Amino acid sequence: MSIRKHTEDICAGLNNEDYSVQPQVFVSPPKWHLAHSTWFFEQFVLGNFAKNYSVFDEDFAFLFNSYYNNVGKRVLRPNRGLMTRPSVEKVYEYRAFVNEKMTEFLASDLSRNVADIIEIGLQHEQQHQELMHYDIKYILGNQATFPSIENNFDFSQKNIPLKFISFEEGVYEIGHQGDNFCFDNELGRHKVYVNSFEIADRLITNQEYIEFIEAGGYQDFNLWHAEGWDFVQQNELKAPLYWHQVDGEWHHYNLHAFEKVNPNEVVKHISFYEASAFAAWKDMQLPTEFEWEVAADQLDWGKLWEWTNSAYLPYPNFQKAEGALGEYNGKFMINQMVLRGAALSTSKNHSRKTYRNFFHPDMRWLYSGIRLVKHG
Amino acid sequence: MSIRKHTEDICAGLNNEDYSVQPQVFVSPPKWHLAHSTWFFEQFVLGNFAKNYSVFDEDFAFLFNSYYNNVGKRVLRPNRGLMTRPSVEKVYEYRAFVNEKMTEFLASDLSRNVADIIEIGLQHEQQHQELMHYDIKYILGNQATFPSIENNFDFSQKNIPLKFISFEEGVYEIGHQGDNFCFDNELGRHKVYVNSFEIADRLITNQEYIEFIEAGGYQDFNLWHAEGWDFVQQNELKAPLYWHQVDGEWHHYNLHAFEKVNPNEVVKHISFYEASAFAAWKDMQLPTEFEWEVAADQLDWGKLWEWTNSAYLPYPNFQKAEGALGEYNGKFMINQMVLRGAALSTSKNHSRKTYRNFFHPDMRWLYSGIRLVKHG
Amino acid sequence: MSIRKHTEDICAGLNNEDYSVQPQVFVSPPKWHLAHSTWFFEQFVLGNFAKNYSVFDEDFAFLFNSYYNNVGKRVLRPNRGLMTRPSVEKVYEYRAFVNEKMTEFLASDLSRNVADIIEIGLQHEQQHQELMHYDIKYILGNQATFPSIENNFDFSQKNIPLKFISFEEGVYEIGHQGDNFCFDNELGRHKVYVNSFEIADRLITNQEYIEFIEAGGYQDFNLWHAEGWDFVQQNELKAPLYWHQVDGEWHHYNLHAFEKVNPNEVVKHISFYEASAFAAWKDMQLPTEFEWEVAADQLDWGKLWEWTNSAYLPYPNFQKAEGALGEYNGKFMINQMVLRGAALSTSKNHSRKTYRNFFHPDMRWLYSGIRLVKHG
Amino acid sequence: MSIRKHTEDICAGLNNEDYSVQPQVFVSPPKWHLAHSTWFFEQFVLGNFAKNYSVFDEDFAFLFNSYYNNVGKRVLRPNRGLMTRPSVEKVYEYRAFVNEKMTEFLASDLSRNVADIIEIGLQHEQQHQELMHYDIKYILGNQATFPSIENNFDFSQKNIPLKFISFEEGVYEIGHQGDNFCFDNELGRHKVYVNSFEIADRLITNQEYIEFIEAGGYQDFNLWHAEGWDFVQQNELKAPLYWHQVDGEWHHYNLHAFEKVNPNEVVKHISFYEASAFAAWKDMQLPTEFEWEVAADQLDWGKLWEWTNSAYLPYPNFQKAEGALGEYNGKFMINQMVLRGAALSTSKNHSRKTYRNFFHPDMRWLYSGIRLVKHG
Repeated sequence: MSIRKHTEDICAGLNNEDYSVQPQVFVSPPKWHLAHSTWFFEQFVLGNFAKNYSVFDEDFAFLFNSYYNNVGKRVLRPNRGLMTRPSVEKVYEYRAFVNEKMTEFLASDLSRNVADIIEIGLQHEQQHQELMHYDIKYILGNQATFPSIENNFDFSQKNIPLKFISFEEGVYEIGHQGDNFCFDNELGRHKVYVNSFEIADRLITNQEYIEFIEAGGYQDFNLWHAEGWDFVQQNELKAPLYWHQVDGEWHHYNLHAFEKVNPNEVVKHISFYEASAFAAWKDMQLPTEFEWEVAADQLDWGKLWEWTNSAYLPYPNFQKAEGALGEYNGKFMINQMVLRGAALSTSKNHSRKTYRNFFHPDMRWLYSGIRLVKHG
Repeated sequence: MSIRKHTEDICAGLNNEDYSVQPQVFVSPPKWHLAHSTWFFEQFVLGNFAKNYSVFDEDFAFLFNSYYNNVGKRVLRPNRGLMTRPSVEKVYEYRAFVNEKMTEFLASDLSRNVADIIEIGLQHEQQHQELMHYDIKYILGNQATFPSIENNFDFSQKNIPLKFISFEEGVYEIGHQGDNFCFDNELGRHKVYVNSFEIADRLITNQEYIEFIEAGGYQDFNLWHAEGWDFVQQNELKAPLYWHQVDGEWHHYNLHAFEKVNPNEVVKHISFYEASAFAAWKDMQLPTEFEWEVAADQLDWGKLWEWTNSAYLPYPNFQKAEGALGEYNGKFMINQMVLRGAALSTSKNHSRKTYRNFFHPDMRWLYSGIRLVKHG
Repeated sequence: MSIRKHTEDICAGLNNEDYSVQPQVFVSPPKWHLAHSTWFFEQFVLGNFAKNYSVFDEDFAFLFNSYYNNVGKRVLRPNRGLMTRPSVEKVYEYRAFVNEKMTEFLASDLSRNVADIIEIGLQHEQQHQELMHYDIKYILGNQATFPSIENNFDFSQKNIPLKFISFEEGVYEIGHQGDNFCFDNELGRHKVYVNSFEIADRLITNQEYIEFIEAGGYQDFNLWHAEGWDFVQQNELKAPLYWHQVDGEWHHYNLHAFEKVNPNEVVKHISFYEASAFAAWKDMQLPTEFEWEVAADQLDWGKLWEWTNSAYLPYPNFQKAEGALGEYNGKFMINQMVLRGAALSTSKNHSRKTYRNFFHPDMRWLYSGIRLVKHG
Repeated sequence: MSIRKHTEDICAGLNNEDYSVQPQVFVSPPKWHLAHSTWFFEQFVLGNFAKNYSVFDEDFAFLFNSYYNNVGKRVLRPNRGLMTRPSVEKVYEYRAFVNEKMTEFLASDLSRNVADIIEIGLQHEQQHQELMHYDIKYILGNQATFPSIENNFDFSQKNIPLKFISFEEGVYEIGHQGDNFCFDNELGRHKVYVNSFEIADRLITNQEYIEFIEAGGYQDFNLWHAEGWDFVQQNELKAPLYWHQVDGEWHHYNLHAFEKVNPNEVVKHISFYEASAFAAWKDMQLPTEFEWEVAADQLDWGKLWEWTNSAYLPYPNFQKAEGALGEYNGKFMINQMVLRGAALSTSKNHSRKTYRNFFHPDMRWLYSGIRLVKHG
């Protein structure tokens, strides 16, 4: 239950309204996360396996299903922020109720099959924990008043010259190995031929990114994908998300404060388009996800998710899970790019070198950063 | 201060999230109304006239200005529902603070000029009280769970045959008379030539409106304005707002309950387009605002605002007020239709026969109804 | 048939592509006008009354119906510019075919009823002639190359000081009188009480309008309706349609040339919003349509349609025509403003003092101008 | 010049309006293709290398640049269909003029560098030839009247049982080899590890696709990518592009006729989403572009472009060309899927096994089809 508890800890410092708002379609209200991750256990564990279980509220399946078409109708995603009922208090009651029922249920005989689903439920909740970090920052960072809440992520990075680690070309094995939990998209360990490459030993810093800005990086279309350039133009982008220029100096919102950008921290809240343009400006590239996995043991990582230049596609022998859980990964394998590594916002057990995170190339509200590679 | 108190009473039964959401651009969160009507006093009275007044919070002028371009920048209207800070609690503190300062201020010598502005501030707050009735119903009526809150509006209407009262053609005087408060748009009492007409002695009932629905009124384009027909098609309208068909019977959401439509109540939450189509189906018309005002003394009214077939335009000698308050009425005199009368949701002092309410012809969330006239 | 011939004359100088394009929803391709005005005779005259008439092409009723829901389905308005078939040549054949059939038909005995419909058909075609003038200018004026075609409209105006003609308050008669043709919206001559007013003896000139521009008229929100101000902001308006600043001087496209704005011509291609803001800047008003009609005999008019401050609404005893032709006027009586007078682009027989033209307040592609009034 | 001539041959049967319309943003008017492919030679060859060359028309660089930011401003893509000037005739004159100048220029001494650019110009024109096939079909296929023009593409396919050809896992070489022309995206021949797979010996037929439709393929969300399912829902897709059900039987528009779907032809005008859902329904996959290239020598191909399950990404040592031509390929390497093979619409020299075609996954107007693979 400590995992379940952590979900609630992430919300420390929020007022009721912070819990309930949806400033963009890609943001979900924290209240919704709290309820949805609970509904997942009610739907897939208690509802299917616990004797005589009766649901906390008949309406919640409709209100808190995310995208499982197999399970039934649901509130449309853009309307999650319009749900004022149930209240935050009621959702906390719901969590307590389901936790109690789960505890009772876990005390009974537990089959292997159910244990697997519970494992997925916890992993799923941890994924939502990370999304909550993104969403809460987005909600607060778009208030005119920049509210301050506690946060102790340390993004500092020694601004020492980039060094590159070399890897020989050859056949490498990619994908999850062993008995520990992983998602279906990591399975099917297989061989990949990787050409020789050199990979940076650290992420790009704010200092380095400011040089890109000052060199006119956001004005030079030659550095950008065509769709990235459109994205920059339409949104009049001039800097990473949460950055604002005040009296000629770059500031950003960082949960505990709106403050000057620290040059010796890693640059974060970067879209794939920006990461790729930065690399082009350096005359380098982003790593493929295979290069990244090959190099992972020699990298220090865990501060930020690192954009790769690999599209999110199935491994050669990808099999999606049976039933509703089969909707978990496979159906998103189009138009998204893979990120590797993990961020300070990532929950325990979600940092492993085969983990494949993925987002659309214009997303900036995640904790994402830039690592470079060189070829040839 | 009883007017100010009433604003808060309207919110009884809301949870924090109900206060803060904006399901459509035309809806404002109740929290916003509470703060905006307070800001109005701070901005136009305390800020201008009270000695040594310092504002409750520097950010509030930006956050709670509605549309006064003369006063400065403001949160864009579609983003009112994204304001999670200040919290509901803080807004209530703001109200208490400004109330206290106003009480102090009122105890000092009060010039005629300031009294006028305070009068407008109270009238303004009462207008927002009515909007809050609309907005709260819209917010709750769009929850999947139809929450119940107390409400004692009595919309019952004897379903007796319509009778018509006749008026002779001739020159009549229109517009406000006397020393009582009125808005600038009612001033400039002037002569109007009105042709003979007969006006219904009561509003249309749900029973009569159901006959229109069952006769195919929503499917017969000949009854509708071209833009009204587009509106019906695009929104797949089949009945008034808040109506849902359950097992073949019309139900509607009415704050205290989701319940069967009572045939002996007046039909409400009707757009101008629907009112006009209904009249066309009866081979009658909606009254002009002048016919309505001429007949007003012989009508029983006050249940619902009554759509007229008059566009909202200035009276012959209309003068808009000086300064920011000049933005109050004149700049809205395009593309809107006048409603006359008053509704159960209308605050005291806002029921007078010269009062000109106005909305766009597709608005349905207000307490609006239908009165018919016949000509020739 | 001279009226029918004139429709084709208006297209002199167009190439095939000019005939077929629809750069905005409110523009119709000239080819469409040519065919639609022909279809009107086929549908309402030949199809209903001529013995053994068989239509030129079965598809044309679908392709060239404009908005007559009673007559059947039709190509959606925004898709008129996508119709490449029939070709321009085929449409001219269609016109010749229907002209011939009409000539044969007219030679036979003609009932009063049919004569009325033919009259409407010709009036209808003349209205489309005027729209063709607007549409052709819009199509050509939005080519990067500003093509030159012949045009001899003379918009010159002596730039003498504005003089105002006074009218006494009193009861006046409004609406069409006599046996000549008029539209249903002009009928029902009735009394109106008009307050005293003074009306300008000429239209506003480019010179006067440039003064408004240079005084910051497009930047001062106090002069504008709220929706007008939105319109200005969203479209970044700084001058009338077709005006471009070249080397600090105002130029405009005028069919025969792209040339310097002549200060001594009337300002044209003005939206209602701009006309109204200009009047506000002068501390004057636009006339109501009743004031205009009362004054008409003492005005020199016919250069441009003149925006009034009257919404397009039915006269007291308005009766819409029976059948499909009943869709002609009544269903547009919402959200539009009346223009009075006539323009150089107006066809003969469409200049009469009771004629009620109407457009949405943001339309600028028509030949519209500004006349001021003063009150009190 | 035979390549240039072929571009004009493709337009046989078009009327002037067919040349000029743009029914969707992804369609360009044939007139635009004719001019743009000509401008390419004027801009990159004559303008840079021919002595004393003066351009045919100063405006054409603005009008007919496609997406080369390095070359200057241009007409926005969605407005290509609004260009009525220059006329079709003028564009043919432009082609003749540039052809003549090119002939003169080619007669002079030709450096290797210029020859390369001319080669690219011709390849570029051939790519536009193929797009013209798509665009012309789209323009005509969306006319209410389904115009008939000559077309002799033979899409017939023996409806014999699918057979699968097996390939062993191992390291294979991918990418262009030799001195013949290829695009920059094919270069950098490199090793790829390919797992064992079996690939179908022919494309899917209409008969097989109808079985998918009749089995409810368009209604079963489990078969679709999440974004594919949205695409199906929003566009209410039920069959491939150009298919219409008439009296219970599938018909399609095929340029020469609107006719019954022939079960023994390959299914075409399929989006990636549909290809992928079809494969999922068969419990198979689409090939990766590497599997396809490995198998190519044993496949019979050339009827339709074949969707692969590979995202369009750079090869390991991808280098984009210098200058404006560097915008040719690299900047599109996001959000698109690779197609391999060639179609009957493909110009000579554009059929080679290393050729990487690419489109967004929702595009259907190209000549695309389905080939299946099985794994493990």
